[in-house]
Amino acid sequence: MDDAPHQSTSALSRRALIGAGALGLATAGGMGAAIGTSPARAATGATRKVTIYAEALPGNQYGYGLAPGQATVPGPVLEMYEGDTLEITLVNTTSQRLSIHPHGVDYDTGSDGAPLNGSFNNPGETRTYVWRSHEMTAAAGRRFMPGSAGYWHYHDHAMGDDHGTAGIARGLYGALIVRRRGDILPDKQFTVVFNEMMINNKTAPNTPMFEANHLQRVEWLAIGHGNLFHTFHLHAHRWADNRTGMLEGPSDPSPVIDNKDLNPGSSFGFQVLAGEGGGPGVWMYHCHVQQHSQAGMSGLFLVRNADGSMPPGAEEAIHRFQGHAAKATSEHSAHQ
Amino acid sequence: MDDAPHQSTSALSRRALIGAGALGLATAGGMGAAIGTSPARAATGATRKVTIYAEALPGNQYGYGLAPGQATVPGPVLEMYEGDTLEITLVNTTSQRLSIHPHGVDYDTGSDGAPLNGSFNNPGETRTYVWRSHEMTAAAGRRFMPGSAGYWHYHDHAMGDDHGTAGIARGLYGALIVRRRGDILPDKQFTVVFNEMMINNKTAPNTPMFEANHLQRVEWLAIGHGNLFHTFHLHAHRWADNRTGMLEGPSDPSPVIDNKDLNPGSSFGFQVLAGEGGGPGVWMYHCHVQQHSQAGMSGLFLVRNADGSMPPGAEEAIHRFQGHAAKATSEHSAHQ
Amino acid sequence: MDDAPHQSTSALSRRALIGAGALGLATAGGMGAAIGTSPARAATGATRKVTIYAEALPGNQYGYGLAPGQATVPGPVLEMYEGDTLEITLVNTTSQRLSIHPHGVDYDTGSDGAPLNGSFNNPGETRTYVWRSHEMTAAAGRRFMPGSAGYWHYHDHAMGDDHGTAGIARGLYGALIVRRRGDILPDKQFTVVFNEMMINNKTAPNTPMFEANHLQRVEWLAIGHGNLFHTFHLHAHRWADNRTGMLEGPSDPSPVIDNKDLNPGSSFGFQVLAGEGGGPGVWMYHCHVQQHSQAGMSGLFLVRNADGSMPPGAEEAIHRFQGHAAKATSEHSAHQ
Repeated sequence: MDDAPHQSTSALSRRALIGAGALGLATAGGMGAAIGTSPARAATGATRKVTIYAEALPGNQYGYGLAPGQATVPGPVLEMYEGDTLEITLVNTTSQRLSIHPHGVDYDTGSDGAPLNGSFNNPGETRTYVWRSHEMTAAAGRRFMPGSAGYWHYHDHAMGDDHGTAGIARGLYGALIVRRRGDILPDKQFTVVFNEMMINNKTAPNTPMFEANHLQRVEWLAIGHGNLFHTFHLHAHRWADNRTGMLEGPSDPSPVIDNKDLNPGSSFGFQVLAGEGGGPGVWMYHCHVQQHSQAGMSGLFLVRNADGSMPPGAEEAIHRFQGHAAKATSEHSAHQ
Repeated sequence: MDDAPHQSTSALSRRALIGAGALGLATAGGMGAAIGTSPARAATGATRKVTIYAEALPGNQYGYGLAPGQATVPGPVLEMYEGDTLEITLVNTTSQRLSIHPHGVDYDTGSDGAPLNGSFNNPGETRTYVWRSHEMTAAAGRRFMPGSAGYWHYHDHAMGDDHGTAGIARGLYGALIVRRRGDILPDKQFTVVFNEMMINNKTAPNTPMFEANHLQRVEWLAIGHGNLFHTFHLHAHRWADNRTGMLEGPSDPSPVIDNKDLNPGSSFGFQVLAGEGGGPGVWMYHCHVQQHSQAGMSGLFLVRNADGSMPPGAEEAIHRFQGHAAKATSEHSAHQ
Repeated sequence: MDDAPHQSTSALSRRALIGAGALGLATAGGMGAAIGTSPARAATGATRKVTIYAEALPGNQYGYGLAPGQATVPGPVLEMYEGDTLEITLVNTTSQRLSIHPHGVDYDTGSDGAPLNGSFNNPGETRTYVWRSHEMTAAAGRRFMPGSAGYWHYHDHAMGDDHGTAGIARGLYGALIVRRRGDILPDKQFTVVFNEMMINNKTAPNTPMFEANHLQRVEWLAIGHGNLFHTFHLHAHRWADNRTGMLEGPSDPSPVIDNKDLNPGSSFGFQVLAGEGGGPGVWMYHCHVQQHSQAGMSGLFLVRNADGSMPPGAEEAIHRFQGHAAKATSEHSAHQ
């Protein structure tokens, strides 16, 4: 398995992978909100084409990737702006029936990714799925039907059964972001998937260690899968429990939290400034269910100094984590 | 058991069942927001009287109904506007102790529906419960104590034990809506109750198939009960995670979601335009916990063409669902 | 074990315990919002020092207290305003390794309370932890990085394992509030911790009976811990699902609820007027998971008449609760 792309060291280079849209995205992101100035829905946005390869991986895992041989768990972060269309050509290189099912965006029944609608790839088959998106639209009473913007996700819906239970268990999932024009773009992105008793299908100390420099803008993408219920906790950081994680002004009534339910099929995202308040150092992220964190559902967020150097004590903390986590996980396994 | 009223084909005809309030409701709904123009709390709103019959149903189920012999699972949708009072005469036609306990509204201890307060119907007994409601009221600091508006629910609180465990398990529950004046009224309403491993006390393929025509305004009422934790997912539709499911303007910070925790005692509601974005077709709603959807916690939302005709592929999808669901449910039962 | 301070009969006297800040807090609370007028972050707020004693209690419990011999479960409510710093000197009077780990506030790695960062008290050791806080700060796009205000909590992160599993199980937890200047102060505060199948490490009928007079402003502090998932329900009261529980004006889109997920590591708070809508009487609060309420996760909120006298029926309700709860709990234990 390749190094997982859930930790992107350059947002721009990651975005460049999504068809020809990278430059357009960066430009649009600096344009400010365009709501209200856009013409009819169909006319807004760009259409981007991306090919995704579903592949078997060692250890009975499966992954999505943007090029042959590059499948990862989780799959690549896919991004679009409200109004954009994503045309996904899914190449099934495996011997299993599978699909790709998105949350949040618009699709017709042929792109549902559900066997119910006959929407899946047989072994070896290539199939195109079209995901559209739209801005909010005015309704009666000065209300608006919501647009597509959100921290969404995508996953298999066809391997093993009609809900993709086997595909999800083995790694066929990833993050999907639909942004509003004007949204702030991050410096780095981390994808965290709580799936059964694992994070990104791994347990401590093999869970991802995410890294950023002090005060870099980091976007966390959190996704829940499987059968268990979890709570995501990040040490020394906090976010508003709303669409972006940031307050939309002094009268935004959203609670500010640092621990949030992360349950099957749900997703959320937020941006923090790395080490804001707490400073550089090694900070844990983990499931706050005690037996889950004990059993290996924890990982590290290394906030380096602003110049990229290691802060005091960081090496020791990493070593402790690796030792503690390995011990706890093996004890937990022994007791099962 | 009668055809369940959780799917109302005409919002007005349903509302007409709630005492004499139907016309008044429709009128009030078109009035726009009246907040701030209302006099003292006690003077606002109408008092409506409704008789509810608690009845035993086949299969060891129980239901509430608005007329003798018409009890259903879930019970009827009850609606009021902030300021209204609902006087419920509960007729207990069964041999069990039971009650009716509402969420969200105002009631004194005698209408609590809890044995703690001696508030229940003995077998064969008739008892009146009074549910009041109120608009938001100004508090210090430019804040407001919340009004009663919400997507609430009601349920038994006395059968089997002092928390109504047996009554809830067997079907004594339903939706209760308190609207603010000016709220948009839907064309159709669907009630979905996740109760143990069932939806409305049924498993696939016998779960309700909800129907609407393309772009009809549909109100989903979601309620959780029992002992298990669930997540409600609806394909190809999305809603704002706020009071109404619609954004209150471009600066509403609420996340937009398509998957939400639905746990014991909780409820939420939202409105969507049927097939907005995705178009007509058959869309699944289901619990996103994999073992729950596998075991039968899924159902269909049939979005017909605008003229009411069947969209292409819909019949096939329905047949697939019935076959798949029956197979999965029987396999699940065999493994238990 | 002393009478638990989770029910404070005078908010001011409780606050006075937190260093010299009580008067300052009360004054600041009446100042109105100071956002935007504060100079650089470091210059705002006061620094308060508090000594906390971690002690062994009867029944294999542990508690935090503000003076020797006064440890309780839950520990004392700690409060600060955004911009304040709390310097906590933790005296470990026990034979166990333990720590204090806060949610929501700012701390450097040495005050993390996590063994990962070498931040804990060995048996008999005294150690100082520094918790800072800050107001929201402007970001690009007219957004704000969140400040520290919230209904947070603190807990052990070092007893038994590297996540404090044993310390939390045995009672080392409490509420932490960070207020915005201008927030409304309550008359009374109740702390409710759902920890495994217990409330504040007790089961009915020994769970706390909270008391207030009719229309007193009561602040509920709800915290989840352990391994199980719960939903907190309060009869006859409701709150906005936002930062304060009150609506921030007529356009606040927050849902109003009376039942909310309360899961490990999460916390929320809200203010209600005791008996608003329902009047004086005895009202249940309980976990709405049926097996949990049956097994003893319920308690009473006694709303007295405005003059402090007992409302009609209250004594009977309390007696029923004590009898019912004792019976249900013993039956539950017998079946396990």
